[in-house]
Amino acid sequence: MRNVTKDNITDVFKSYMAPEMDPRMREVMGSLVQHLHDFARDTKLTHDEWRQGIAFLEGCAAIETEDRHEFVLASDVLGLSSLIDMLHSRDDATSSSVLGPFHVSGAPPLEVGGDMKRDFGGPVLLAEGVIRDTDGNPIAGAEIDIWQTAPNGLYASQDEEQDTFSFHGLMTVGDDGRYAFTTVKPVEYTVPSDGPVGDILRACGRHPWRPSHLHYIIKAPGYRTLVTEVFPEDDQYLDQDTVFGVRDDLVMTYHEKAAADFPDGMAISGKVNEPYLSVNFDVILASE
Amino acid sequence: MRNVTKDNITDVFKSYMAPEMDPRMREVMGSLVQHLHDFARDTKLTHDEWRQGIAFLEGCAAIETEDRHEFVLASDVLGLSSLIDMLHSRDDATSSSVLGPFHVSGAPPLEVGGDMKRDFGGPVLLAEGVIRDTDGNPIAGAEIDIWQTAPNGLYASQDEEQDTFSFHGLMTVGDDGRYAFTTVKPVEYTVPSDGPVGDILRACGRHPWRPSHLHYIIKAPGYRTLVTEVFPEDDQYLDQDTVFGVRDDLVMTYHEKAAADFPDGMAISGKVNEPYLSVNFDVILASE
Repeated sequence: MRNVTKDNITDVFKSYMAPEMDPRMREVMGSLVQHLHDFARDTKLTHDEWRQGIAFLEGCAAIETEDRHEFVLASDVLGLSSLIDMLHSRDDATSSSVLGPFHVSGAPPLEVGGDMKRDFGGPVLLAEGVIRDTDGNPIAGAEIDIWQTAPNGLYASQDEEQDTFSFHGLMTVGDDGRYAFTTVKPVEYTVPSDGPVGDILRACGRHPWRPSHLHYIIKAPGYRTLVTEVFPEDDQYLDQDTVFGVRDDLVMTYHEKAAADFPDGMAISGKVNEPYLSVNFDVILASE
Repeated sequence: MRNVTKDNITDVFKSYMAPEMDPRMREVMGSLVQHLHDFARDTKLTHDEWRQGIAFLEGCAAIETEDRHEFVLASDVLGLSSLIDMLHSRDDATSSSVLGPFHVSGAPPLEVGGDMKRDFGGPVLLAEGVIRDTDGNPIAGAEIDIWQTAPNGLYASQDEEQDTFSFHGLMTVGDDGRYAFTTVKPVEYTVPSDGPVGDILRACGRHPWRPSHLHYIIKAPGYRTLVTEVFPEDDQYLDQDTVFGVRDDLVMTYHEKAAADFPDGMAISGKVNEPYLSVNFDVILASE
């Protein structure tokens, strides 16, 4: 097309895609460019604003490292990451939620009833539940990968004071599908806000806080892997999670219990001398 | 909002923007995220495809340097750069076209009638025209910043064999608004295709070629600066410029002329012994 105009350029783009290209790539690129062009047309985006957009991408590029994923963070705070999760969630299963950038592969085994709190301060949290299929039957041998922040609000990978796998554990459940572990109550924390994504948050008058949560990835042969989070119902940021991760069915009550009520059969049974918190969170996996 | 869903997340995003934020920022961010989310919903974008998108951005980041602007190139081949140009073009003025990544500030002065070809091989091109206002009056003192590729298809900044300002010149026109210079006929060339943008082009079955062109930036006090290009009407890539830069009114005939017809008053007058090409391209600037 020799005479490209602001009205036909999207069709010209689509006409440039070759007949033999992958049909899904054609669909995705066509939709991406349609929306990108519509965005520019709808806002009559200026050259200055375009330059600011390029500067944003170059600013993300400048701080991108193996441990700092600014493009993923941008996707998170724009709600794209959560939307992708929800587009592929199953209505008959527990909701998925954001993976986040702090998952570490190779967490050490944690037995059912095991402890992740060790000598860290803060209230003991006993988390337990049953992994079930959509008919309510326990899924024997399901694997649950657990991670969370330390009481200082940092994940092990962010914190030189912690071991590599501090507050990370990999549990395999028995025939009853039951998981249980003790840990410290997770705390609220901020996403990194010292980069270009932080600039966007400030320009939008937004805060960088996430409500406190436990992260789980739950896998079992024949079932769809579930990446999810568990939130306490009294967290002040539940209604304004900066990465849009909260779902109704992931909000649980942390019950306060007396030390004397602490159950037997846990790694730290008999060692709990103060009131503790207890959360029960059952998980439903959809079949593949 | 505690229960974020795939259907309400865009409104939740908009509700997070503070009342006191800049109204234009609100409009741009709201539209950007509306279109980003609609793109994901329309295509039911998968986690794998999202990861490919993040990998694309990280791949651009990995090769971004002062001389390699992969994000700008991505904007160019997706038609966004051209669309931004066209959204702000004036109907009563000469069309704008893409700046591209090869403009260099501080080009040396080039007198009216001057020569940029020097000892480079290839056919002489005599380019001339008049800079006018929308009423047809010449604009005295208009400044025209000119640049193009050498006969090898490379801009000076890409080519160690060339001086910094080879094929770059800055001309100030007189009271008659007339510019004129000799150069070598520009050639077709490819945008850089050895990075992630090249991967996208290949996946879409697209070529990386641009039709041959001269670049102009034309400035005059009281007038809108015009960034544009001049294309020859016989170029094979006019209908498929990979950065969507061609506009009808920028396509000109390069007339073949006999050596004896070469005019007086040019820096190389009397030194042209072979047929040469001549292009006349008048420019209309809109007032500010």
